[in-house]
Amino acid sequence: MIRIVADAMGGDFAPVEQVKGAVNALHNNKDVTIILVGDEAQIKAELANHEYDESRLEIVHTTETIGMEEVPTKAVKTKKDSSLVVAFRLLKEGKADALVSSGSTGAVLTAGVLILGRLKGVSRPALCPAIPNYRGESTFICDCGANLECKPVNLIHFAVMASAYAEAVYGVKNPRVGLLNNGTEDHKGLLLQQEVNHLLKEVDAVNYVGNIEGREIMYGDVDVVVSDGFTGNIATKSIEGCAKAISTILKKEYKRNIFTKIGALFSSGVLKRFKKNLDYEGKGGAMFLGLQKAVVKGHGNSKERAFAVCIEQAINAVRGDMVAKMKEMIDKVNMDALAETAKTSAEGGAQ
Amino acid sequence: MIRIVADAMGGDFAPVEQVKGAVNALHNNKDVTIILVGDEAQIKAELANHEYDESRLEIVHTTETIGMEEVPTKAVKTKKDSSLVVAFRLLKEGKADALVSSGSTGAVLTAGVLILGRLKGVSRPALCPAIPNYRGESTFICDCGANLECKPVNLIHFAVMASAYAEAVYGVKNPRVGLLNNGTEDHKGLLLQQEVNHLLKEVDAVNYVGNIEGREIMYGDVDVVVSDGFTGNIATKSIEGCAKAISTILKKEYKRNIFTKIGALFSSGVLKRFKKNLDYEGKGGAMFLGLQKAVVKGHGNSKERAFAVCIEQAINAVRGDMVAKMKEMIDKVNMDALAETAKTSAEGGAQ
Repeated sequence: MIRIVADAMGGDFAPVEQVKGAVNALHNNKDVTIILVGDEAQIKAELANHEYDESRLEIVHTTETIGMEEVPTKAVKTKKDSSLVVAFRLLKEGKADALVSSGSTGAVLTAGVLILGRLKGVSRPALCPAIPNYRGESTFICDCGANLECKPVNLIHFAVMASAYAEAVYGVKNPRVGLLNNGTEDHKGLLLQQEVNHLLKEVDAVNYVGNIEGREIMYGDVDVVVSDGFTGNIATKSIEGCAKAISTILKKEYKRNIFTKIGALFSSGVLKRFKKNLDYEGKGGAMFLGLQKAVVKGHGNSKERAFAVCIEQAINAVRGDMVAKMKEMIDKVNMDALAETAKTSAEGGAQ
Repeated sequence: MIRIVADAMGGDFAPVEQVKGAVNALHNNKDVTIILVGDEAQIKAELANHEYDESRLEIVHTTETIGMEEVPTKAVKTKKDSSLVVAFRLLKEGKADALVSSGSTGAVLTAGVLILGRLKGVSRPALCPAIPNYRGESTFICDCGANLECKPVNLIHFAVMASAYAEAVYGVKNPRVGLLNNGTEDHKGLLLQQEVNHLLKEVDAVNYVGNIEGREIMYGDVDVVVSDGFTGNIATKSIEGCAKAISTILKKEYKRNIFTKIGALFSSGVLKRFKKNLDYEGKGGAMFLGLQKAVVKGHGNSKERAFAVCIEQAINAVRGDMVAKMKEMIDKVNMDALAETAKTSAEGGAQ
């Protein structure tokens, strides 16, 4: 049995949609048990609307919730009986194999590092969402906001971790890794990118293809895009906003008048596949890489389906033995030597 | 008469498409004269295919061209008879009011600063492209790659200059300015963004609305997005790539089979308007702000229409008295006081 612990109280529509998502995931995965952490009365009230295998669902009651606007460190340290903190504690204690939360990103990051703990050899855990690409596959961006400012060695870790993730969870063989930069030539970028571009060429464990520009993220020619967290965040959200704006324009245009509405009828197959191609919900949440177990951070606005996909992601991370593979890859890389090289050449400069 | 000088040799399809674009712009603007700078024989060979008002077109012959891959500073300093350098010299000498080139970005930036010169009070000239937004208008991003690393005061200049540009050339009244950041709260961002967010609130000449996330760039709720050049470059290209990927997916889906092709016929109006909404070519090039005259940098792959639009942009900058308005706005801002504030609070930290 694969055991998932889910924070039932994190997110704009918690706990209703989180409970629905959990029930949904239970139905589709017969070898999975789920612990829902949160207000028992509220969880039970929603569960009453559903049929599910009670033997595979457990509720752990908590009395506190961490809000989206709270200061993460303070909240995690003081709200000992919050759903998020208790969920992480259960994970740490071995009561579960992976965790899912659609609560505050900052709180998930903080609790992940403070309660669960980092994987040995990883200096900075990082967020890795999947972006739908032109080929109908996923492009993984790491980091996307956990570490705004980075040293070169952090980005080497991101490359290794995201490669292990893509391979273990999505079956991508020998993932192609690109460095997000303002041009493809070796001299491009700030000191950080110049240094990382140089170092990544020396890391055998990473299938590094070179610098890539922002416009290449969605082309699907690389599987993993490595970046500092600030830039990765801007790129990911820019693309998300663009996709949303374009979909909205298209929808609006089709609703314009009776003729365009007829056009929409004749195009329904096309539009359905188009939508599926750009299905952000279906891509799940961001995997929080570099912790001792798999942690999935869902969008704050996750509803049933999105949350269920996040749980599937966590399940697949356990099935694919993601953390063990990551450990193995990290051990292969001589991080100390790279860290030394990076330190010498980037001191006081990078970024 | 408005006098435009155009670098006929810069760009992937030069000089043929540049000459076509110039002829096109001449037709549509009877109060404009154009100087085409480049290889006279090649220019004349193309001109022979067109009818145009010869009294308004002049050719200045040059023998050299600056390639896309050349080191900008070296190329601008040594290739004295290159089309770009000569065009900038003519502009500097008062033979023209504005310049257009679709050659190497680095060379245009270098020649702009070295030959034409900065506007007084501006520490760093910056590139400002227009991105089509959800509302069918333009969002201006400044800087988008001229200055990879920036100090807070540079971004204040970008905000002022881009506001003047949007107002003078596009008639945007009191343009709303947002700072590109990884979240909307005041504490978000690196030291650079935190400082700039703080400073922009104090600049009366700028209609600052606060931090914006990458996803908001295309929503059209702000007219100007301010950023350091590295981040702006990543955001702009990410959006460009996303729009291109999505258009390609849509096109592919409509070509799938006979039914989808019929759907396309019934949707032709929609698709036409959709395409127009995302018309990157129609948005012209990036205005190079902060120089003593208007300089438009077109895409390297500009063809006739794109180059003609760049010329129109240059014409409109002259018509709208962009540089004078920019001067006026810059004078209104107490740059010295701001620079002092920025220096004190950001010293040794921001980026």
